[in-house]
Amino acid sequence: MSARSQNAVYLTSYPAGLPSAGDFEVRTNDIPDLKSGEILMRTIWMSVDPYMRGRMRPDVKSYIPPFSLDAPLDGGAVSEVVESKNEGFKPGDYVVAFQGGWKDYWISNGDGLTKVDAGIAPLSAYLGVLGMPGLTAWAGLTQILEPKPGETVFVSGAAGAVGSLVCQLAKIKGCKVIASAGSTEKCDWLENECGVDVALNYHDCKNAGELTAALGKAAPDGINCYFENVGGMHLEAALNSIAFGARIALCGMISVYNAKEPAAGPPNLAFLIARSAKMQGFIVSIYLHLAQQFAMEVAPLLAQGKIRFRESVYDGLDEAPKAFIGLFHGENFGKAVIRVGPDRL
Amino acid sequence: MSARSQNAVYLTSYPAGLPSAGDFEVRTNDIPDLKSGEILMRTIWMSVDPYMRGRMRPDVKSYIPPFSLDAPLDGGAVSEVVESKNEGFKPGDYVVAFQGGWKDYWISNGDGLTKVDAGIAPLSAYLGVLGMPGLTAWAGLTQILEPKPGETVFVSGAAGAVGSLVCQLAKIKGCKVIASAGSTEKCDWLENECGVDVALNYHDCKNAGELTAALGKAAPDGINCYFENVGGMHLEAALNSIAFGARIALCGMISVYNAKEPAAGPPNLAFLIARSAKMQGFIVSIYLHLAQQFAMEVAPLLAQGKIRFRESVYDGLDEAPKAFIGLFHGENFGKAVIRVGPDRL
Repeated sequence: MSARSQNAVYLTSYPAGLPSAGDFEVRTNDIPDLKSGEILMRTIWMSVDPYMRGRMRPDVKSYIPPFSLDAPLDGGAVSEVVESKNEGFKPGDYVVAFQGGWKDYWISNGDGLTKVDAGIAPLSAYLGVLGMPGLTAWAGLTQILEPKPGETVFVSGAAGAVGSLVCQLAKIKGCKVIASAGSTEKCDWLENECGVDVALNYHDCKNAGELTAALGKAAPDGINCYFENVGGMHLEAALNSIAFGARIALCGMISVYNAKEPAAGPPNLAFLIARSAKMQGFIVSIYLHLAQQFAMEVAPLLAQGKIRFRESVYDGLDEAPKAFIGLFHGENFGKAVIRVGPDRL
Repeated sequence: MSARSQNAVYLTSYPAGLPSAGDFEVRTNDIPDLKSGEILMRTIWMSVDPYMRGRMRPDVKSYIPPFSLDAPLDGGAVSEVVESKNEGFKPGDYVVAFQGGWKDYWISNGDGLTKVDAGIAPLSAYLGVLGMPGLTAWAGLTQILEPKPGETVFVSGAAGAVGSLVCQLAKIKGCKVIASAGSTEKCDWLENECGVDVALNYHDCKNAGELTAALGKAAPDGINCYFENVGGMHLEAALNSIAFGARIALCGMISVYNAKEPAAGPPNLAFLIARSAKMQGFIVSIYLHLAQQFAMEVAPLLAQGKIRFRESVYDGLDEAPKAFIGLFHGENFGKAVIRVGPDRL
């Protein structure tokens, strides 16, 4: 096995502002022989997710350590076991893990691997609707927003992997759903395929005031829940529009991730007081203990065709930086995934 | 009775920015004869509270309607029943209500009056530690922050009616308490009388960075709970300092109430995501159903001398505007109350 080589995407510089192709480089290394307990994994699908941008800031103390420079990147992936010196895994097993991405082969000691069934859903779905983004959507909705039937739920970044599931789960729970996305095509999909009541193309709004007006038209009685993926003018407009007792789940603020200088926050936070409203941030890992409950609720909906999802598929490890950069330009429609290798060799 | 007259403070103009004496005027009116079911009340103590500033903005839709121009102001007061055509009340009864302030005599139909006992505490305490500010402090702490013993609680505006009770209740619950106030005298009182662990004079901090550094020194492991009365740099510094899983209760933002233009919000709201933290606004009226539970917990602590409170006493209805304006200059030390009349005529 030592003759085998690994291709990996390295981070060669920390992005200043938006990441660019020059911040990444594919390098090839030999793969060492397996030690007892280790497994050699072949990456089939890898994920790029907005939270990874936060790991490209060496100066910010966060919930996960920053990526090192001149080292391989890492991220969620679905992999196949190629060779195993661990009795828990055998060649041909499919696993999903928060690791393995940005490489075509990698070695694991088995920690953090979850076996997945290719018969239930396409393998890539375990990076999206049945994976971390899916759990994020479900947990933010059910654990923080707790919408009641008849309430109005507003979702930004609604055509994304997380947002589109939030929209559909909220519809299934009997809510009115208002979505914001960045193109006519995305809005059409949300209204026609996902059952969203009103989809707003935020490019039609120049500022928070215009988005507030659009929200006011779509939800004259205000919004009871807001699932926040975007930040900036979206948060300001949502705060203007919240009804008494509203809940806001802060999942992401993709609009500010690449800011060189911290952007000012919304000037209308005091509405949280006057309207006795809650704004709660979360990272998905605090809800890992609910992963099974999530899967039991969402997998059947998927099997019954009640949940739609989209993927932006990129081919080959070399495309990973492009897919990642695309996250911040609204270029991906649905979950961005990279096919690193075939399902079976 | 119709010969009797009422003195009332009128709002003659909506303040632009900080309120000034010229926005108020005392006028005298005849008191009409009582109808069946009505009660004539004599105001003994009246309250001025920061939330009233919000009612002096005709353009902002809020949870209570704005004050009308050229009409008497209104606010919390402790009053004595002088004459009654309502069988629920007899002359000599003391009552507290969200009404009756800014006037020396007023007529009620009995709605919203709560009888109080002058034997348990001085009558003015029903406007402070045993009244609306007390319930505000207790509810924000117990219903939103829910501090656990050993956790660190940060309180801004800590020498005020609300803040000082939050500090003391948090100490009683076994927390480490860090307080912020605006003078050495206030900080000394908080540390020496209220048992606060560290009191910071925020005038020693020029900006959020300096306040963050001071908080970091006082609470090296971060703050678990923040009770927000002030806004501005306090909120930004608190967000910089929150520990994972922190809770923020938004009670007030006195620093922004008089802003002519909306001030930008804190640039670091995304910390709520990375640290899975909650920020929840509230108005005290949503917790009125807990008023009895609050009284049962706090009244004995007060009787046992375990709770200290301070009052800034102003004499006479004419002083009410001055007391109110003083709220926004940090001039009051403890609850600002106005003695409108003697306990007994």
